[in-house]
Amino acid sequence: LGRGLATAKAPSNLFAPLDTFADRHIGPDDHEVSHMLSELGYESMDAFVDATVPPHIRVSASSVSNESIPALSEAELHRRAKALGSSNKSFKSYIGLGYHNAVVPPVILRNITESPAWYTPYTPYQPEIAQGRLESLVNFQTMIMSLTAMDIANASLLDEATAAAEGMVMAFASGNNKKRTFLVDSGVLPQTVAVLRTRAKGFGIHLVIGDASSALKDEKLRSDLCGVLVQYPDVNGKITDFTALAASVHDAGAPVICATDLLALTLLKAPGEWGADIVLGNSARFGVPAGYGGPHAAFFATTDKLKRKMPGRLIGRSRDTMGKPAYRLALQTREQHIRREKATSNICTSQALLANMAAMYAVYHGPEGLRRIASRVHALTQVFKSTVEGFGYKAVNADFFDTLTLDVTGVSSTEAVHAAAAAAGVNLRRIDDKLVGLTFDESVGPKDLLRLITVFANAASASTPALADLATPETVAIPSALRRSSAILPHPVFNKHHSETEMLRYIYHLQSKDLGLVHAMIPLGSCTMKLNSTSSMIPLTFPEFSAVHPFVPVDQVKGYLQVIKELEEDLCKVTGFHACSLQPNSGAAGEYAGLSVIRAYHESRGEGHRNICLIPVSAHGTNPASAVMAGFKVVAVKSLTDGGLDLEDLRSKAQLHKDNLAAFMITYPSTFGVFESGVQDACKIIHDNGGQVYLDGANLNAQVGVTNPATCGGDVCHLNLHKTFAIPHGGGGPGVGPICVAEHLAPFLPGHPLVATGGSQAIDAVSAAPFGSASILLISWAYIKMLGGQGLSDSSKVALLNANYMAHRLSGHYSVRYTNHNGRVAHELLIDLAEFDKVAGLKVTDFAKRLQDYGFHPPTCSWPISTCMLIEPTESETLDEINRFCDAMIQIRKEAEDVITGKQPKDNNVLKNAPHPISVLTLTEEEWKRPYSRSTAVYPAPWLVETKFWPTVSRIDDGMLSSHR
Amino acid sequence: LGRGLATAKAPSNLFAPLDTFADRHIGPDDHEVSHMLSELGYESMDAFVDATVPPHIRVSASSVSNESIPALSEAELHRRAKALGSSNKSFKSYIGLGYHNAVVPPVILRNITESPAWYTPYTPYQPEIAQGRLESLVNFQTMIMSLTAMDIANASLLDEATAAAEGMVMAFASGNNKKRTFLVDSGVLPQTVAVLRTRAKGFGIHLVIGDASSALKDEKLRSDLCGVLVQYPDVNGKITDFTALAASVHDAGAPVICATDLLALTLLKAPGEWGADIVLGNSARFGVPAGYGGPHAAFFATTDKLKRKMPGRLIGRSRDTMGKPAYRLALQTREQHIRREKATSNICTSQALLANMAAMYAVYHGPEGLRRIASRVHALTQVFKSTVEGFGYKAVNADFFDTLTLDVTGVSSTEAVHAAAAAAGVNLRRIDDKLVGLTFDESVGPKDLLRLITVFANAASASTPALADLATPETVAIPSALRRSSAILPHPVFNKHHSETEMLRYIYHLQSKDLGLVHAMIPLGSCTMKLNSTSSMIPLTFPEFSAVHPFVPVDQVKGYLQVIKELEEDLCKVTGFHACSLQPNSGAAGEYAGLSVIRAYHESRGEGHRNICLIPVSAHGTNPASAVMAGFKVVAVKSLTDGGLDLEDLRSKAQLHKDNLAAFMITYPSTFGVFESGVQDACKIIHDNGGQVYLDGANLNAQVGVTNPATCGGDVCHLNLHKTFAIPHGGGGPGVGPICVAEHLAPFLPGHPLVATGGSQAIDAVSAAPFGSASILLISWAYIKMLGGQGLSDSSKVALLNANYMAHRLSGHYSVRYTNHNGRVAHELLIDLAEFDKVAGLKVTDFAKRLQDYGFHPPTCSWPISTCMLIEPTESETLDEINRFCDAMIQIRKEAEDVITGKQPKDNNVLKNAPHPISVLTLTEEEWKRPYSRSTAVYPAPWLVETKFWPTVSRIDDGMLSSHR
Ligand SMILES: Cc1ncc(COP(=O)(O)O)c(C=O)c1O
Ligand SMILES: Cc1ncc(COP(=O)(O)O)c(C=O)c1O
Ligand SMILES: O=C([O-])O
Repeated sequence: LGRGLATAKAPSNLFAPLDTFADRHIGPDDHEVSHMLSELGYESMDAFVDATVPPHIRVSASSVSNESIPALSEAELHRRAKALGSSNKSFKSYIGLGYHNAVVPPVILRNITESPAWYTPYTPYQPEIAQGRLESLVNFQTMIMSLTAMDIANASLLDEATAAAEGMVMAFASGNNKKRTFLVDSGVLPQTVAVLRTRAKGFGIHLVIGDASSALKDEKLRSDLCGVLVQYPDVNGKITDFTALAASVHDAGAPVICATDLLALTLLKAPGEWGADIVLGNSARFGVPAGYGGPHAAFFATTDKLKRKMPGRLIGRSRDTMGKPAYRLALQTREQHIRREKATSNICTSQALLANMAAMYAVYHGPEGLRRIASRVHALTQVFKSTVEGFGYKAVNADFFDTLTLDVTGVSSTEAVHAAAAAAGVNLRRIDDKLVGLTFDESVGPKDLLRLITVFANAASASTPALADLATPETVAIPSALRRSSAILPHPVFNKHHSETEMLRYIYHLQSKDLGLVHAMIPLGSCTMKLNSTSSMIPLTFPEFSAVHPFVPVDQVKGYLQVIKELEEDLCKVTGFHACSLQPNSGAAGEYAGLSVIRAYHESRGEGHRNICLIPVSAHGTNPASAVMAGFKVVAVKSLTDGGLDLEDLRSKAQLHKDNLAAFMITYPSTFGVFESGVQDACKIIHDNGGQVYLDGANLNAQVGVTNPATCGGDVCHLNLHKTFAIPHGGGGPGVGPICVAEHLAPFLPGHPLVATGGSQAIDAVSAAPFGSASILLISWAYIKMLGGQGLSDSSKVALLNANYMAHRLSGHYSVRYTNHNGRVAHELLIDLAEFDKVAGLKVTDFAKRLQDYGFHPPTCSWPISTCMLIEPTESETLDEINRFCDAMIQIRKEAEDVITGKQPKDNNVLKNAPHPISVLTLTEEEWKRPYSRSTAVYPAPWLVETKFWPTVSRIDDGMLSSHR
Repeated sequence: LGRGLATAKAPSNLFAPLDTFADRHIGPDDHEVSHMLSELGYESMDAFVDATVPPHIRVSASSVSNESIPALSEAELHRRAKALGSSNKSFKSYIGLGYHNAVVPPVILRNITESPAWYTPYTPYQPEIAQGRLESLVNFQTMIMSLTAMDIANASLLDEATAAAEGMVMAFASGNNKKRTFLVDSGVLPQTVAVLRTRAKGFGIHLVIGDASSALKDEKLRSDLCGVLVQYPDVNGKITDFTALAASVHDAGAPVICATDLLALTLLKAPGEWGADIVLGNSARFGVPAGYGGPHAAFFATTDKLKRKMPGRLIGRSRDTMGKPAYRLALQTREQHIRREKATSNICTSQALLANMAAMYAVYHGPEGLRRIASRVHALTQVFKSTVEGFGYKAVNADFFDTLTLDVTGVSSTEAVHAAAAAAGVNLRRIDDKLVGLTFDESVGPKDLLRLITVFANAASASTPALADLATPETVAIPSALRRSSAILPHPVFNKHHSETEMLRYIYHLQSKDLGLVHAMIPLGSCTMKLNSTSSMIPLTFPEFSAVHPFVPVDQVKGYLQVIKELEEDLCKVTGFHACSLQPNSGAAGEYAGLSVIRAYHESRGEGHRNICLIPVSAHGTNPASAVMAGFKVVAVKSLTDGGLDLEDLRSKAQLHKDNLAAFMITYPSTFGVFESGVQDACKIIHDNGGQVYLDGANLNAQVGVTNPATCGGDVCHLNLHKTFAIPHGGGGPGVGPICVAEHLAPFLPGHPLVATGGSQAIDAVSAAPFGSASILLISWAYIKMLGGQGLSDSSKVALLNANYMAHRLSGHYSVRYTNHNGRVAHELLIDLAEFDKVAGLKVTDFAKRLQDYGFHPPTCSWPISTCMLIEPTESETLDEINRFCDAMIQIRKEAEDVITGKQPKDNNVLKNAPHPISVLTLTEEEWKRPYSRSTAVYPAPWLVETKFWPTVSRIDDGMLSSHR
């Protein structure tokens, strides 16, 4: 009786807590599990799993068990998180370097960041049920375009450093990969330089770092120049007029890339106004806490001229079939699924939730509010500067916005200053033994200012003036040529939601348009949309975790480092690997990091020439894109008609490329939704030919405690923590893509220029922050700790069971394309709808849009096979919900039958006209002109009258979209 | 430029924070304020206020200013609240006495308690846009009926003690007020006894407190017996079989009232199963934190036989005009507006949000889960008992559920035990110098148990056993005759939402049906539905405030006491009074408390015979009900045709009752929406005739910083903190109704039996907890501190302006019933729709329901005048929203014109058929049969296509009601 999975039932004990998370996370209860097993013809879960997962790759139950990973109750987890939080020291950081103490407007904190309506939806691939976040992402783009004065902006990238790397590669590509020198000004942030180094390697770009103006005088450099990156204001706070530099770079035929700061841009002349071609940066100071490094949204903007090469997702305005304006993802033809190895970027999951927070921050403050904030920050910086100059410190930069670099040697020493700072609970930027840096932000108030002044007074044995004695600056310290004169954010959305009531209503209005896990199952194959539990989300917004600068001394982040250590260890237990890096901040970033590690490994063995990467045709588009970015050449491997890898093709290609074989990328279970029994054989073929095996762990939810990537034969894998480990997808990000590696690869795990991390022969950084999107690691950590080993394995088993039960119910109505020899699918299933197109012109999209009318988010469409749907229910869905979904699918099958038999016309039927938003219902009888009733259109199943999520627009023209992943 | 009200603009200063709350709280910005002023023909806000508020009652600007109440920024408030929270000591309390350490399921905490979708709606007077919380309140009722085994339960009362008082009065009334002896068993909680004492006084009930079984042997007592109250389990933890007692009480012709505990009832025979007639208690241990006393929902259940006398709101099942099942408030005919001085209860605002939390807790855990929790609590209590009995302590009660009373004298002393407890950070119940009490709850885990055992071991110089050595009890310590054998919570709603995903979807499904401030203005006159800001809500769920037992030693609650002190002081500044009591937990409770204070004052002067209370006919129904409860006789005073009080009638009645005149109750500005200039004269008349003036402060939002109750001439007033001071209304509660009094009344402010509070000649308690619903006081405290004096006055001024602008726009279309001689209304306006009924049969309800089609919550209907609407926009609404509302009203006026002119039939038009839910749109053309289009029905204004809140059912027949479960 009760909930808990049969296999999970711990012997009851008087003292055992009752708030066991597995009971809440796993959807089906004991009865439902038994029912599904018996429908499938199994006596036990074990028997079912045995029939589903090949025996030779099974791992022992002890690998992921309550002994190896003990389970904490929800309350215990909360206490543990609190305790770890308190073991971080809450210093106030003025370190700068692109990270600030952001002030999150409470209305945004509570109603976006902490709201499952905003954090549970997926990337808006189904625009009819995603108009809310699409509008908000358009606001983000509009905000970036306005502040940077560029023609077009995307809907976010992963962080400033990777955005700079994307910019570099875009510059390189826009010169047709012919010119190879990329010039990085010495004012650029150190972590950006590190990431550029890594990325340049893969593309064979030659990086030159130095004073850009001087370097540009070199004709040899100019002749090979593919682009220049400057920072505005720069790492030391200096504001330079780059107008002449831009002209000179343009003369050399290359684009200028500018890394910049949004708050500064409210007062500074926009990069677009002095000639920048690509503008990028970190939007986090617009209301997104530092979180020990992330997540936050990088922005990226460019000119009309270059827009076709712009990486990342772009939201565009379109119209629905009724002519109503509607938003949708645009330029998808350029995403990796289409371009594959021709893609120059592998970005997939980005930072939608954080972009939305930043956009909402601008909506809330508006142009005047932002300028007021910027002016106050600037004025306090000025007051501080003139005060400490009075003590004898010397500011290296005369022009500045919020950042000062002080030469302390006249009156003190850097040690003395840093010691005084530490004593006052303050972090300054350590530069060298002469200079100290500091950056002001919105959070700094008069008391903070006084504390800071006291630090510098003490270190100089001067006396601290009273606040009242500090003079208000008379003018700004921004050169007049660089002051912004153009308007910012004139769009109405930034000029009307300024009362909290209006802001709240705007947030609720947008969210009412979006289907999330709060409404129904989101059975997106390969995306693993499971419960994002409240207990795992709560620690994230503890200030002890959210308000931490990524470059603080490590003794201030004991709590964080403990979480990181435990998470790394647990992920190693789950994958069977030896070491882990949490730095990559998306799955695709993990792929790139893993492949770069493989490249470094080969190099370390003098086999740097190995450059062939084998990838099955069924692979996710990020795989070939990442391979190319890591400097490999992609060779495709065929699939068999049963969905399995063509081992013969693999063998012959491995042997053919034997001397140069670098890697093989494989997704397991395959993107076709089956556990291939030949996976170990495949890996052996690769190893025998000198290659390394990269396992794409997007499907790890099928494996936990059942098999693991190491046992399958891999050398490295990435995990999508935003899939298997329950980080909410945030409507298109954040994500985390850690990599786990076998022992021989551990030395090469990515390092960081400012915080020691990674292996002994670490490759350069792959992300801006040492531990990537550190704050959300807490979510996966909590998820793992609360489930414990048993709950983790049970989750995977139930995920397999749910998918197989669904396959069982749908077969007979739909053709399940691939199963193993026992008729079993893995944790997802591929159904093929080709026949409907053939006989009645009904496409995958028609089925998908009709599912919206049933209140469901459609599964993954047309990937990995264009005529298919890939359906993944996950373990968090109950039998009821799964049955409801199957009922809907079966009913749609009947509706399709009516089209096939001619009862409904081919061009005017419930599928072709789907989805049906409310507004369609108000058409007059003449306008209606449909051979079915309104009620059939919108209430095709009885439950819908009570529970239905409504699309807000009718079908949006997908244009040339041939895939929506 | 920018936001801020012109009058509020502080001289800008470099160090001034920018997150000033007034800018976010007040809807209209400077431009909008100027626009409205100029539309009304005023040059300045001052000129407008001068024309609106009588000059002789104006107060000086300094009374409520930034000097008297300095403004904190949002961030400063947050820091201050954190600091005060940390100055509370976080002891773990085992004090019991009806309060526990509740465990709030995180999914409920975040998605109900902290969600504006749940906390901002009003009492569900408009069922078509409130089906979500109506369903949840029905769940609450169903849960109570099942656990108590009673026929009917209401949707919550204020706290257990007042619920017991309601039970007593109901028993008294059900015996037609003839029998006057009410017997209270000595096992009843002390705070309940105190509240009964207060309440008995007003009704002239004779309270006998003692061992009930023995007392019942007294024939004299039996012959005058109106009811008996027992506690089950009792204050000391004892479980008594009351079967025989019940029979004996029934023999005497009186009902048995049982105060009980919901968790205990999952294991104990239900009171309904052994003969109780009324069952009540506190539902807080079902997931509602103690919050230093509240808020939480009391429950109240009774038999079919007695149901007509049941106090409070009851939700029933009904049907809409399409025949679809729908919920609505039932038995409204019994509310005070109808019964007025014949009402036996004055309860109005109850505890809807907390009842919803408790109901959701049961939905989440289900019958099995609740039993598991109860069994664990019981088992841990057993283990503790046998262990400390091993040390030599003696349990006074052999039978128990979770509470033990220990005689410590054999091995230790009470001082030693309490000292050991304090050293361990633990609070036990102090009983006397022999006995110590303690109560276990869901939060207690093995570590807590061990800590507790150690306390008792130390105090007895015994050694603490290891956890592993503690024996699991073999049987329960509940007498077999009192074990529950019947099923609990069989209803499906308690048996299917047990995974977090399902629970979350259920919460979201319900909330999607309810219109709250997150969607649109709720212009309910007299209800003051203003912004409930996130900043003011955040401290509420800090554990330092939420997890505090109300009876802890005062040195553990320094933070709370500071908040209480500051709030009392600020409320005195705002009202002009001398002292304040925060104990009353609703407006009506405040009325009752204030009148009881007046009664005590008269008594103290030997004028206890004064018992006449004058009340204008326009008064809110709670006024006469409260007066009767406080022991007064109500005499009505007429209104003039201009809406003013009839001073002549007042004078003649005051003089007529001169010798017995006790009080006059007046609402100011009046419920007719005008500032009467004669208020001071009226008060003088009362004072001249020996009476005291009670000012109903429901309309205080019109007064702050402009006038005040003391200046108007009052002696005492209550404030609805859930109106003027921004406590969210929670869909029907919680509320707080503090009273402020002039100096001569201060000695009589209510006391409390367990915590020193109130005046030197304090009346007995009026609520269970010393400071009432203490935790939500933080909200009003934050509101006041963040606005500061200037922001508070500006808020009232803008509230007046918004209402007058609205009156201006609507006049010409509707008749504004009352204005002052300058044509000004106060903060709300009354429009009279009588003419429409006369010429076209269109009622107030038809206009109200049609407003729902425009996406608005209708204003207060048919009160205080049956043909009117009372509209209150508050200061938080922007000009846009106010205009949108006026546009809707004007458009409806045009729609009414079509009915008047016969363009639309009288019985089939957009008003009569309103509201139009989505389901109506799917009617076939034959079924539609309406002389207007679907589009006219649901999109009568252009903005609705984009932004519309949809009713989920069509009009609900107010007459028809099928059942209450
Ligand atoms: C199989 C597979 N590989 C890689 C990825 C890329 O992961 P991310 O979106 O986190 O970059 C995905 C994302 O869906 C995927 O399904
Ligand atoms: C004028 C007036 N007095 C008293 C009350 C009762 O207040 P409460 O609902 O808090 O008990 C109300 C509530 O609306 C009111 O409007
Ligand atoms: O986001 C994905 O393409 O899966």
